[in-house]
Amino acid sequence: MGFRFRPVDSTFYDLFTTSAKHLVEGASLLAEVLADGADRHEIAERMRRAEHAADETTHDIVKRVNSTFVTPFDREDIYSLASSLDDVMDFMEEAIDLMVLYEVGDLPSELAEQVEVLQRCADLTAESMPRLKTMSDLEEYWIEVNRLENTGDKAYRRILAKLFSGSYDALEVLKLKDIVDALESAADAFETVANTIEQIAVKES
Amino acid sequence: MGFRFRPVDSTFYDLFTTSAKHLVEGASLLAEVLADGADRHEIAERMRRAEHAADETTHDIVKRVNSTFVTPFDREDIYSLASSLDDVMDFMEEAIDLMVLYEVGDLPSELAEQVEVLQRCADLTAESMPRLKTMSDLEEYWIEVNRLENTGDKAYRRILAKLFSGSYDALEVLKLKDIVDALESAADAFETVANTIEQIAVKES
Amino acid sequence: MGFRFRPVDSTFYDLFTTSAKHLVEGASLLAEVLADGADRHEIAERMRRAEHAADETTHDIVKRVNSTFVTPFDREDIYSLASSLDDVMDFMEEAIDLMVLYEVGDLPSELAEQVEVLQRCADLTAESMPRLKTMSDLEEYWIEVNRLENTGDKAYRRILAKLFSGSYDALEVLKLKDIVDALESAADAFETVANTIEQIAVKES
Repeated sequence: MGFRFRPVDSTFYDLFTTSAKHLVEGASLLAEVLADGADRHEIAERMRRAEHAADETTHDIVKRVNSTFVTPFDREDIYSLASSLDDVMDFMEEAIDLMVLYEVGDLPSELAEQVEVLQRCADLTAESMPRLKTMSDLEEYWIEVNRLENTGDKAYRRILAKLFSGSYDALEVLKLKDIVDALESAADAFETVANTIEQIAVKES
Repeated sequence: MGFRFRPVDSTFYDLFTTSAKHLVEGASLLAEVLADGADRHEIAERMRRAEHAADETTHDIVKRVNSTFVTPFDREDIYSLASSLDDVMDFMEEAIDLMVLYEVGDLPSELAEQVEVLQRCADLTAESMPRLKTMSDLEEYWIEVNRLENTGDKAYRRILAKLFSGSYDALEVLKLKDIVDALESAADAFETVANTIEQIAVKES
Repeated sequence: MGFRFRPVDSTFYDLFTTSAKHLVEGASLLAEVLADGADRHEIAERMRRAEHAADETTHDIVKRVNSTFVTPFDREDIYSLASSLDDVMDFMEEAIDLMVLYEVGDLPSELAEQVEVLQRCADLTAESMPRLKTMSDLEEYWIEVNRLENTGDKAYRRILAKLFSGSYDALEVLKLKDIVDALESAADAFETVANTIEQIAVKES
């Protein structure tokens, strides 16, 4: 459009980038927790701190929207983006938290596939956030996240089929299902982030 | 109001009607899958195609909203309506998908009552969509969908009581509950569609 | 701001206060149902009536928003507040309803802690609603509700750990988990109410 009336307040882009970086950390803690001999309690504690840091960033974004007269894009879209980034973190924390709380034993190996998807999504999201400033080269990002969510969904379904195949007792199924559901919800939440960015890009173009 | 400033773009009404027709197909696939000797895999495959077709229509609506300057009613309401129609389809697909994935045996006969409700809701929704153009005779539609959702809710609760009565083992309860929950969510989503239409009609009246 | 252009329509504040008072009643029915020898069916019936009354109030608010030209604060915020208050009631009713439907036996004593949190939240919410008029002294309210939700969350997690510790069979876990989940969702919904009020207060300040 050549000329923009709205003065660009870079703080928002920086805050969204910070928010996405918390997700990179969260996803890497999930990868750690799956490793043999991982100290789940200690990792859960670090996840809790990461989640608190992410909360702070979300609050900073909300406070800034409320106190800023001219925002770089629609207020509603800023809220949506901040809260969908926050949702990802909540689901990632929930997954580790439940592993500790339910005192589950061995985790099905397929969880590694779900976590790989989350790591890729987190990296892509963190890389794309600074590009919100120019609204350029974002299409590839959201297409790839949608593709990854699809891969994650297939892994999720394979795990469900395994859980219900008769080799796990019902109580173990209940525990494990809550955990893989949390991971699947984290992947879905990454897709919501990508869709929100698509919406914003389309409006601003 | 006699005279309307907004030129009527019929495409939106046509797209919403198409969207609702996908739901009629989905509900009829659910009825098929309950029949004795039904080939669940084959029906699940057709459901998957129906769900993809519904997705396409939803995307068409969103694209059209984003590229249209004057919309027949509030942009936000168009998004809400499109996404609640889409939710219905997702839940209907989920129900059949889980039947296959969990390899469930016989389904409790009460599921037929839930599916009947969904078929009635789908028919009513498809019939009412073209009436959005004139915003006339819609009240009966949303009252009836709310009544049907109530009937569906009663069937749902009877099934839950049966599942937990002690005649099913815990793993089977887990599987069947996921399926009846999906059907109940589809009925709830039909109610959300009806409530959205009520909101739109009230605003435009 | 000294001078307000918007004439104050007190009806909204009264309706929100009524809505919150239904929640006080709901929380007290939850406390009753936990008492030894409680007649669950009879209490469930009173809860059903309380929930219907709450529904009526929600509809009154929505109707009033739709028919009022100047609202005391943003239309969207009024909808959000009304619907989050309504959500609390739905979850409280669900909890009692499932106790009856699942014919559960003894309830873990920790449920009393969850219900105490709900009673405190309901009281605080009802007290704060009339203060919406002047938007004064609300900060303490939302901080306290957030603190209570945290306490409730800890009780919820202790109950989950107990349920999955091996002293309950899987079917009983399934039943009880649905009930404590409903109570936890009610606490979360109170937090959403508080956050909505915070948002409104920040915008109007």
